[in-house]
Amino acid sequence: MVAPAVPRRLPALAEWIRGRNRSVLRELVSVVSRPGILSLAGGLPDPELFPTDHYAAALAHVLDHDDGALQYKPPFGPLKQHIARLMARRGAPCTPEQVLLTTGAQQGICIAISLLLERSEPVVLEAATYPGLIEALAPFTPRCLTVGTDLDSGMDVEEVEGLLSRGARPAFIYAIPDGHNPYGVSLSRAKRLRLVELARHHHIPIVEDDPYGLLTYDGAVEPPLRALDEDWVLYLGTFSKTIAPALRLGWMVLPADLMQAAAIVKEAGDLESSALTERAVSFCLQNGFFSAHVRRLRDVYRIRRDALLGALERHFPRDARWTRPHSGFFVWVELPAAVDCAALLNVAIEEERVAFVPGHAFAAGGVAARNCMRLSFASCSPDEIEEGVRRLARLVSRRIAHG
Amino acid sequence: MVAPAVPRRLPALAEWIRGRNRSVLRELVSVVSRPGILSLAGGLPDPELFPTDHYAAALAHVLDHDDGALQYKPPFGPLKQHIARLMARRGAPCTPEQVLLTTGAQQGICIAISLLLERSEPVVLEAATYPGLIEALAPFTPRCLTVGTDLDSGMDVEEVEGLLSRGARPAFIYAIPDGHNPYGVSLSRAKRLRLVELARHHHIPIVEDDPYGLLTYDGAVEPPLRALDEDWVLYLGTFSKTIAPALRLGWMVLPADLMQAAAIVKEAGDLESSALTERAVSFCLQNGFFSAHVRRLRDVYRIRRDALLGALERHFPRDARWTRPHSGFFVWVELPAAVDCAALLNVAIEEERVAFVPGHAFAAGGVAARNCMRLSFASCSPDEIEEGVRRLARLVSRRIAHG
Repeated sequence: MVAPAVPRRLPALAEWIRGRNRSVLRELVSVVSRPGILSLAGGLPDPELFPTDHYAAALAHVLDHDDGALQYKPPFGPLKQHIARLMARRGAPCTPEQVLLTTGAQQGICIAISLLLERSEPVVLEAATYPGLIEALAPFTPRCLTVGTDLDSGMDVEEVEGLLSRGARPAFIYAIPDGHNPYGVSLSRAKRLRLVELARHHHIPIVEDDPYGLLTYDGAVEPPLRALDEDWVLYLGTFSKTIAPALRLGWMVLPADLMQAAAIVKEAGDLESSALTERAVSFCLQNGFFSAHVRRLRDVYRIRRDALLGALERHFPRDARWTRPHSGFFVWVELPAAVDCAALLNVAIEEERVAFVPGHAFAAGGVAARNCMRLSFASCSPDEIEEGVRRLARLVSRRIAHG
Repeated sequence: MVAPAVPRRLPALAEWIRGRNRSVLRELVSVVSRPGILSLAGGLPDPELFPTDHYAAALAHVLDHDDGALQYKPPFGPLKQHIARLMARRGAPCTPEQVLLTTGAQQGICIAISLLLERSEPVVLEAATYPGLIEALAPFTPRCLTVGTDLDSGMDVEEVEGLLSRGARPAFIYAIPDGHNPYGVSLSRAKRLRLVELARHHHIPIVEDDPYGLLTYDGAVEPPLRALDEDWVLYLGTFSKTIAPALRLGWMVLPADLMQAAAIVKEAGDLESSALTERAVSFCLQNGFFSAHVRRLRDVYRIRRDALLGALERHFPRDARWTRPHSGFFVWVELPAAVDCAALLNVAIEEERVAFVPGHAFAAGGVAARNCMRLSFASCSPDEIEEGVRRLARLVSRRIAHG
């Protein structure tokens, strides 16, 4: 007799992670990055625009001149000074002492969560938001109080006010006031003022995620929420979109009184960020290089944004609506309610060799946005954008006609 | 009349972090690294031994030849293959698919905790252990079940057995089987076998932290626990001690079935480790460079270890005991119970300009080790070690005479 197979026993996972799958966005990456696909999906900056030579020179210089560059080191003071100057140019001055260096803005999100959120507490966020936030929240199994977003003026701050005045006590409000991912919208001045007032009045901190704030395309821009309040706004910045993602270097600007607690959380997470990277990035922030580089990025990405908006205007059906971003990488398209963009993606890839991200990949709190798609203009030439939108428009029109 | 000052209101911190201070070890760093102090305190590798030129060449090569090196990228497959070969040389073969790249071993610790630990659950660890573990555990407010450590054979595995057979259900057992920090001891073969048996029998995973396992000084070494079981051991490795800390690059070897969950936790933490660093380290693992480099590290650190053990033999009082490490950076010294090493440190710095880390900096679960000190031989020349121990011995002898 053959003994029955004994199932292999494995370590018991913590409850929050059991049966949990990778985010829809992560799963999509392998699909939409297949060769031969014209992709308007990726949220990646264009590698052609990375200052590779300058960064290589920075690394070589630092390794040649700084004995401590490969060692464990405290956060690099001169980099914090550069970041404080950068924040001033961004319209939100701070001191170097308010800057915490992080391993990308994603770690900043985790630090903010660890500082502010108790298990199962509520948080306020938009119905579609950055999936990395949802992933970072997951171990805390929070209650997600979602609010709507206006495609011209951003987060529905009245809805936030309603929640708070009805007694909701969220651990924080998560906002992406500039170049929202996925909506592409920037928050209006009036809403910025009101949101910060609400935070102060109700004693609810705002976690302000600002990966795209330096990539603005239309002149005058609103300063970030941090410019309006330094006690109730925890600001997150990153060099991933302006220099390169592989730096894995970001920063937080925090109320000075939270700095020690934040440093404890940061150290528990990965001890420190790379001393070498901190020094090389500091080198890149010297002598006007970074400002000139950002101006170039704005010029290139502005042309691509205009190409995408123009193509949508020319080719997309009239009952579609989309955002007109002043910063960031994304345009959000709302199709008639009957169109299922998740199903559309499969057809788009198989029949038209074009990709986008369906809205439900960004859905927080069960809201699906199934008739929506996020298009990125960051990584394609104007010609590719035109061709991609043409292909998509063909499909969408057919779908609407059949629907 | 002047209105009374209103205290400035700030965001409410999560309960676990309120009033929490930085670890004793972190606080000590600034004290013991003052100029003019002969320090046997630091656990840092010697920067003179970093392969700076080779790593600079690796970075330059990668930036010159790999267009994707600065972009968001999935974990670099060739590096996983190199690590699998390295694990085989370490005596614990694994497949590349079982390797998860991490931002240093500290992130690996956090990932293991996030995978395995529920809030307020117990964990098993030694009475003195790596402070980074304690910091990473803090948000979970776990119950620390501490066990003793034999200075010749390592963790008291019988005590672990006693805990488990009396019904303790820890989320995991934390072990540093080679070159223990702070004890300097390596776990005996018999205890390795028994510990893994216990893990399998009681279904309790072991988190095996192995930062020093490649730095061995006395020929034949025991393979890590991972060599004895691939289902119940979560292994943590790092390049911080063999190449350089500023890489912030480590790895886990995990049961294949845990890999997806671990990848989710990793991504939530910082999206991914640096594509550039992964490629540059992969370059360093080619063509025998790394093996030759590690042989050189062993030769240099062996001489320093021998210098420290010889100096202790020559100068320290007979009622002191210390470990004789076969790997790693540390010697643990037990002085007569009356000696308070925390107080001794102040005198050592002021009067003798010499530093060490007092045992209580490593105390988990309230056990103080006040009569103990950790000495590091990693960053000093044999002459400095001799001089440092001579100064310390003077103090210790006086203290014992007065005590």
